[in-house]
Amino acid sequence: MFEQITILGPGLLGASLAMAVKERDLARRIVSWSRRPETRAKCLNQNWCDQVADSPEAAVKGSDCIILCTPVKTIAPLVGQIAPVLEKGALVTDVGSTKSLICRESRSLLANTGARFIGSHPMAGSEQAGMEFARGDLFEQAACLVTPLDDASETEIAKLLQFWEALGMIVSTVSPEKHDEIVAHVSHLPHFLMSSLCSYLASREPNWQNYSGGGLRDSTRIASGDPGLWQQIFTQNREEVVRALDGFERELQALKSALLNGQDLQILNTLERGKAYRDRLRQRD
Amino acid sequence: MFEQITILGPGLLGASLAMAVKERDLARRIVSWSRRPETRAKCLNQNWCDQVADSPEAAVKGSDCIILCTPVKTIAPLVGQIAPVLEKGALVTDVGSTKSLICRESRSLLANTGARFIGSHPMAGSEQAGMEFARGDLFEQAACLVTPLDDASETEIAKLLQFWEALGMIVSTVSPEKHDEIVAHVSHLPHFLMSSLCSYLASREPNWQNYSGGGLRDSTRIASGDPGLWQQIFTQNREEVVRALDGFERELQALKSALLNGQDLQILNTLERGKAYRDRLRQRD
Repeated sequence: MFEQITILGPGLLGASLAMAVKERDLARRIVSWSRRPETRAKCLNQNWCDQVADSPEAAVKGSDCIILCTPVKTIAPLVGQIAPVLEKGALVTDVGSTKSLICRESRSLLANTGARFIGSHPMAGSEQAGMEFARGDLFEQAACLVTPLDDASETEIAKLLQFWEALGMIVSTVSPEKHDEIVAHVSHLPHFLMSSLCSYLASREPNWQNYSGGGLRDSTRIASGDPGLWQQIFTQNREEVVRALDGFERELQALKSALLNGQDLQILNTLERGKAYRDRLRQRD
Repeated sequence: MFEQITILGPGLLGASLAMAVKERDLARRIVSWSRRPETRAKCLNQNWCDQVADSPEAAVKGSDCIILCTPVKTIAPLVGQIAPVLEKGALVTDVGSTKSLICRESRSLLANTGARFIGSHPMAGSEQAGMEFARGDLFEQAACLVTPLDDASETEIAKLLQFWEALGMIVSTVSPEKHDEIVAHVSHLPHFLMSSLCSYLASREPNWQNYSGGGLRDSTRIASGDPGLWQQIFTQNREEVVRALDGFERELQALKSALLNGQDLQILNTLERGKAYRDRLRQRD
């Protein structure tokens, strides 16, 4: 599918992506670069890695597809860094959890080059971080949102969709703004709530967790995610996260009022609406 | 350990309990009663069930241990119903998720009988409901809180602790009030939040869930719990649930303010405190 794919930032997502590309033979060569020399050294021993570069500029040389897998705050700056040396016609994408800022900045940065940026968000991964957790099947059957801006070429969009589909993903296209609204609700809001909950419970008697069951364990798993990565995600998607929080807080207040006022039927209705929503997710349990 | 154990309400917990008692040979006979005739008929075919009774009164006849496994709102009324016919010296307990109301009412109801009530809360189970999901190993390695009131006999407390330990549980004793405070935080609060979240997401575009990953799925699993049972739990533990909610809301507001004010370091600190708390739960992942 591609002559050479460059993975910038081979962590859990980047390394899993490289494995999946290698397994499915979607590129003749895979080149990787990591900011940390230790990670670059580790890459040398990975069979998904054909070449390790010492700089982002060296890594993108000769690549027709570049995938940025670094923390969201660093993606646009890195696009700026590689912009002058990208090959004509190169397709640049990323795997970041936020899209509006990244896509608009990256478009500007590539404006006078022959390369194009189209954002991607493969919704795979977990609270684990690092290459050592990478798996070639990480993307199978997971959702992927591709977020072209209005001026993106249909051919390039089609090529990017085809790429993620070849990894087994269920792909949709939406605008970067819509993407950020959606993930603010189904990903960033639950994370924000569960991190707040864990932080709050840590401030009470932490040993109460000895009296908890699978419910607390499963519901708070996401709070184990990397704090640095998630601080960047919340900050990059601030406006939509706050909007989602506002909506959630209205719902929470309504349920709390119902409890305070002994409105059993209203409590029941809310719990039933919530259960109906959750049960539709069940098929993927 | 007991001559005859009576299980009132053989749902997921009650039937699992009966299986575990049978497997470990903790009672010579197991008698069960269910409000629903269909469930009583089903019990006849279960090998953990030695006898099915047509009424709670008939079910407790000859029992030295009675375990109430019905929804929390019905526990004290059922204790009142069986009070006149309980055997002298019978030990009555329950598996309800709330304790203060149940323990105080049950003590009064048994005041002039030769039987004693001591509350229990084995923290096992899941969002599934019904006998068909029962498993004899449900209680192994799970926490159990036993909640004697001040006047409970040491001998009877010891016997009850021994019973739950024989099922493989990690048992602690706390007052009913302390129990309700603890579970308000580590169980009822997360459930309240995730039910509110699911109800809120249902009010937005429900198909956004197609773009969600394992994080939303795992964090909201508890919202699939039985709405009727949980409405009763929240209502019985209203005061402590509201107190826990108040504390959580302060934490949430602080994190939201930090986000609105661009206080990255404060966001990071909260996420790190939350992660540290959650990581201590990890051993049970």
